[in-house]
Amino acid sequence: MQRLLSLLLALSCAVSSLLAAASASRPGLLWSPEEIAEARASLGKEPLFDAALQEARDLVAKALSQPIDVPKPLDAAGYTHERHKLNYREMQAAGLLFKLTGDPRLVAFVRSQLLAYAELYPTLGKHPAGTGHSPGRIFWQTLNECVWLVNVSQAYDFVHDDLSQADRELIETRLLRPLCRFFVEDRVRELDRMHNHGTWTVTAVALAGFALGDDTLVDQALLGSKRDGKAGFLRQLDALYSPDGLYSEGAYYGRYAILPFYLLGRVLEHRRPALKVFALRDGLLPKALHTQLQLTDANGAFLPFNDALKEKSHRSPEILLALAEVYAHHGQDAALLDVARRQGAVALTPAGLRLARALSATAAATPAYPYSSIEYRDGRDGSSGGLGLLRAAAPGGEPRSGLLLCMKYGVHGMEHGHYDKLSFQLHDQGRELLPDYGSARFLNIDQKTGGRYLPENKSWAMQTVAHNTVVVDQRSQFGGKYDASEASHAERHFFQVSDPSFQVVSAREDKAYAGVSMLRTMAVINDPRLSSPFVVDLYRLRSAESHTYDYALSYSGQFLATNATLQKHTTQRSPLGTAHGYQHLWLEAEGPVAPDQLQFTWINGKRFYTVTSAAGADSRLLMHSLGANDPNFNLRREAGLLHRRQGSNLCFATVIEPHGVWDGNKEFCQGNTPSITRVDVLHSDDTSTIVRVTATGGRSWTLLLNAGPASDTASHKVQVAGETFEWVGNAALQSR
Amino acid sequence: MQRLLSLLLALSCAVSSLLAAASASRPGLLWSPEEIAEARASLGKEPLFDAALQEARDLVAKALSQPIDVPKPLDAAGYTHERHKLNYREMQAAGLLFKLTGDPRLVAFVRSQLLAYAELYPTLGKHPAGTGHSPGRIFWQTLNECVWLVNVSQAYDFVHDDLSQADRELIETRLLRPLCRFFVEDRVRELDRMHNHGTWTVTAVALAGFALGDDTLVDQALLGSKRDGKAGFLRQLDALYSPDGLYSEGAYYGRYAILPFYLLGRVLEHRRPALKVFALRDGLLPKALHTQLQLTDANGAFLPFNDALKEKSHRSPEILLALAEVYAHHGQDAALLDVARRQGAVALTPAGLRLARALSATAAATPAYPYSSIEYRDGRDGSSGGLGLLRAAAPGGEPRSGLLLCMKYGVHGMEHGHYDKLSFQLHDQGRELLPDYGSARFLNIDQKTGGRYLPENKSWAMQTVAHNTVVVDQRSQFGGKYDASEASHAERHFFQVSDPSFQVVSAREDKAYAGVSMLRTMAVINDPRLSSPFVVDLYRLRSAESHTYDYALSYSGQFLATNATLQKHTTQRSPLGTAHGYQHLWLEAEGPVAPDQLQFTWINGKRFYTVTSAAGADSRLLMHSLGANDPNFNLRREAGLLHRRQGSNLCFATVIEPHGVWDGNKEFCQGNTPSITRVDVLHSDDTSTIVRVTATGGRSWTLLLNAGPASDTASHKVQVAGETFEWVGNAALQSR
Repeated sequence: MQRLLSLLLALSCAVSSLLAAASASRPGLLWSPEEIAEARASLGKEPLFDAALQEARDLVAKALSQPIDVPKPLDAAGYTHERHKLNYREMQAAGLLFKLTGDPRLVAFVRSQLLAYAELYPTLGKHPAGTGHSPGRIFWQTLNECVWLVNVSQAYDFVHDDLSQADRELIETRLLRPLCRFFVEDRVRELDRMHNHGTWTVTAVALAGFALGDDTLVDQALLGSKRDGKAGFLRQLDALYSPDGLYSEGAYYGRYAILPFYLLGRVLEHRRPALKVFALRDGLLPKALHTQLQLTDANGAFLPFNDALKEKSHRSPEILLALAEVYAHHGQDAALLDVARRQGAVALTPAGLRLARALSATAAATPAYPYSSIEYRDGRDGSSGGLGLLRAAAPGGEPRSGLLLCMKYGVHGMEHGHYDKLSFQLHDQGRELLPDYGSARFLNIDQKTGGRYLPENKSWAMQTVAHNTVVVDQRSQFGGKYDASEASHAERHFFQVSDPSFQVVSAREDKAYAGVSMLRTMAVINDPRLSSPFVVDLYRLRSAESHTYDYALSYSGQFLATNATLQKHTTQRSPLGTAHGYQHLWLEAEGPVAPDQLQFTWINGKRFYTVTSAAGADSRLLMHSLGANDPNFNLRREAGLLHRRQGSNLCFATVIEPHGVWDGNKEFCQGNTPSITRVDVLHSDDTSTIVRVTATGGRSWTLLLNAGPASDTASHKVQVAGETFEWVGNAALQSR
Repeated sequence: MQRLLSLLLALSCAVSSLLAAASASRPGLLWSPEEIAEARASLGKEPLFDAALQEARDLVAKALSQPIDVPKPLDAAGYTHERHKLNYREMQAAGLLFKLTGDPRLVAFVRSQLLAYAELYPTLGKHPAGTGHSPGRIFWQTLNECVWLVNVSQAYDFVHDDLSQADRELIETRLLRPLCRFFVEDRVRELDRMHNHGTWTVTAVALAGFALGDDTLVDQALLGSKRDGKAGFLRQLDALYSPDGLYSEGAYYGRYAILPFYLLGRVLEHRRPALKVFALRDGLLPKALHTQLQLTDANGAFLPFNDALKEKSHRSPEILLALAEVYAHHGQDAALLDVARRQGAVALTPAGLRLARALSATAAATPAYPYSSIEYRDGRDGSSGGLGLLRAAAPGGEPRSGLLLCMKYGVHGMEHGHYDKLSFQLHDQGRELLPDYGSARFLNIDQKTGGRYLPENKSWAMQTVAHNTVVVDQRSQFGGKYDASEASHAERHFFQVSDPSFQVVSAREDKAYAGVSMLRTMAVINDPRLSSPFVVDLYRLRSAESHTYDYALSYSGQFLATNATLQKHTTQRSPLGTAHGYQHLWLEAEGPVAPDQLQFTWINGKRFYTVTSAAGADSRLLMHSLGANDPNFNLRREAGLLHRRQGSNLCFATVIEPHGVWDGNKEFCQGNTPSITRVDVLHSDDTSTIVRVTATGGRSWTLLLNAGPASDTASHKVQVAGETFEWVGNAALQSR
């Protein structure tokens, strides 16, 4: 609160000192007149910037060759939806190109579009395909309408000085001001919301406010509709990110939200520089970009936890814009050039120009971006669990495309969160190996419920069994109740990555299932005696009652072999259950695990993978595939397994071992069977866990783990069947 | 026969004139002493050749650091199998490196291995995992043993002059000669066989013959065991290829077979140059390489018809070797450099060195390899049907990654052939869009029946329903009887690609189903008014009896929408049939098509695809997925559809239209619904077919097709409901 007040103070100072700036010279949003001059002087000199510009030129050239089309809004993902999206892109691009080239046809084009909208807008009521709590008028949801206004405000600002007073009057009174009124009055809930929709709304209102020279609108955007600092952009910056720059909805929406934060941030640097918005919260915004980059796989795709589309990568326009901004204005970090090179494009912004210049001025051999093992604390003050990333490459392998494990133990993540506490995903060879399903949605594709989230997003993608974690009694965490899950979070236990050959992440969850306390500790061991790093996973469950525990894994690839004795359902198939996601799983095979180790091998790309898991007499293996109760074929055809056990207190001890190499082109195969033969829990109580992993040739790894309160300094001593184990701290490894 | 005699004559001349050459200077197989000197002088100068050499160095360095291991043969794809494969690679590489470096440790290494084999070999009986009609001793099948001998003959030749007489005696009498005897006596059926196994056998025996200085062996390899020209290498060259260089087993085995043909071809150029083996049959061997290259997709992968693994591409070692040979010795065609650049590697042969030199001497801008629309006649004299390739790229698109349609109407293709006459496969965006399943096999992977062909190869992959063609009465072509299919072939009708905007392939099959005559005509229309070329497919069936006709398509991608009224099997699934491949299909949904057009849309990558098909009142759509009756999970999870109709005479008229663009990263979607709305058969009799394809906006394409005997000059005139259609030749197009 103290903090907020000082912000308000800074802001009001800024407001008073900069009142003149509201009617400052144009353009006055993302580009300053000086930056326009700089870009003009650079035309034809910077290939990547020229390429970005050429894309805008092509877009506008095509637009100029066709009649203006501002259709009556109709659909959520069909022609009119895409047309209105195209219109704002065209207007923004044409406005910028006008400033860069002075071509008067461009002003005429933007003017015609704006006037067409000024004619249409006052006739519109609620969008005919509008659903949810925030339908728009031009678009089915206000979110798209905000993006429209963000772009159109820029277009208007670019051409403002070249329009007649009468045109400006029409455009402002029939279009821009009514739209802003719609946002700050009718949709004030969105404006004041702590959510990416809120950020888009305030950004739209702020940019329109600056373009209109209306400080009240700007202040409402920054401080909330009541201008009291209880909502608005500055509050969002506080509420939506953890101190480590982790966005509360996850990497996919973090990518989306970063754009309005950076867009408005850049405008504020021009118009309210005293705010120093990029320095707030110890430079949170630049930090948020680096967090997004760390949350990508070898190909730059964002780790798809929570609702996420897997196509999104660091090549998305949002990241292009943010990366250029951080490079140009926050230290010119050469490692960012490595990412920029793989992005292969720059943003069409002043910072994008500077980045393009840096790329063409430096040799290809800039340092690699330091993708690393790192933990991000979750929640506004960083105390709501977190997200742990472990990275490890085989000897001689490139770090970026090695093993990447991401374990999730933070907040639910609002409406787009999943019931997935203590789940993990594993990548290798630049592929998803043990994937997170992401979301059930075909974005922008009209045939699939207008591109919206599909029913299967709730019934499958969000459910616990859709994630690599343990399901208790075939029910999702928190019974699949949103409010309960959103009110809770997992707890970090410890995160230890100082030794690259033995990295460990550990977390607890005691509320997801009443009466069941869960501790998951995952280690990545990198031992040059094996061809690849491997994962050791200890999932410990404690309960007074007996439960059915399903240790769930979804795997990508082709099944090869298991030692379980399976009854296979080859001529008739039924779903595995009736609710909590199980209704979507076809049961393919089921049977007991014998004798005391489960092994399960599959192949993916050029590598073999084996799960080896300590088993009890009660252990059963269930193999399943996705697609039951899916009448519209909305789900992908993926496969998974459950290691099912009954009990009250038990510990799933599992190894995931990548091994061997298969080259179909060269007809070469080596190491198709695993080296690791067994996993044994030597000891497990409330203070410590000791697990031994055994491989062929007498090799073994004994993991000595603290199961009590985390401590780097506490000494442990455990005697098990004649052996004495002593160690200090949370985790130690004995290799033999 | 005339031809064969003249060959024999040439050969005997060669034999007499070159008798001395049998004991020529060494090395005397793939490398001459002069070429060794040339390579020595080039060391460190040609990056791609140096890389190939480095691979050999690494292999040998690792071998030298470990004890020799020549294990007792045991398995078909396990350790001993892979070990013996590794041994021959090591020996061949060490031999060559010895010649290049003179390092005496390399002779010692090859000697030790050879002596270990000389000790082991006489103790071996039939291989314990040997199955089939040609089990080996070192390997489960003689095929691998031949490859072993091809490599070991070279190794022996490299080190021969540096071994003691006693060592040579041991190696020749206990290993090489007994092995040759095994091939020319015990496995004489393989030696004399017109089959890729035969080619490997004769190549092994010939190379060993040259290495041993034994002309009788060489002659048996060239002319058959009886040296009468009725079998052997020269006869194989005649029998196994069509005059267009199409290998009878298909592209996958063609890739495999090309290696021994080229290996022995190169040795003969050194040792029996008068034969001019690369000039035989109008330069058949060079032609065969170009045919292999044309039979690749945008990524260089071989079109996977017949038994085929999809991993095989032009990067396979066989094609590296052949391409270098053709480039270096047959015209230095610059277009081959385009392929070589994408291969990214060269063969470790004298020709590979010359190719590497050419690559580093020329700019990157060499001409693109002319991948084109082309027909290959099938059968020894080219009269047994063929294979038609149609390629078409969208305006501005790269030809290589545009639409690629391959229709198959040739011979069965021996044991690895499928019951797939008149089937096709379609590629787009460098992906398989309407795929051929290829084979059910996990090559070299021990867990999958020792890496052999799986039972599902016969029960699924070979069956007609596994292919994009029409299945009659749910039975495979020729009732799935090998002898009947192998004795038959489809008939080409016409192939017309002179107009790139309207390319057509047409073929008949009258014997696959008794009493049913089938004519399939497929066109690719490239009209700039649509965003992509599209396919028109007319499959005409004539029979006196009524049948069930299943028009089958396997598709890759995610189903989006259909206009059929489907009953969906969402909670219980059963197989679609009990035999002929249908037993492997889960029936997912089924229902009538209404009203008279079937439409079915899916998405793959960044593009939408719609099948539009003229339908009758009897038309039904069946959606299925693969995996029933597959107890060992040997099949991939793929999806398909059947358009099922009842009748005696009917014509499936279908359009496959790629449309629109979807970009998940930029959140952009356009053209998600098809432009083409209907297909109508206006006229169909035994002389002609007229089909009209209608798109939105009043656009249409009317295809005027000859259904009678092919003729480029015959005039056609047909009146249909008031319209008169006139055209000359096999196919004409009227666009509106």
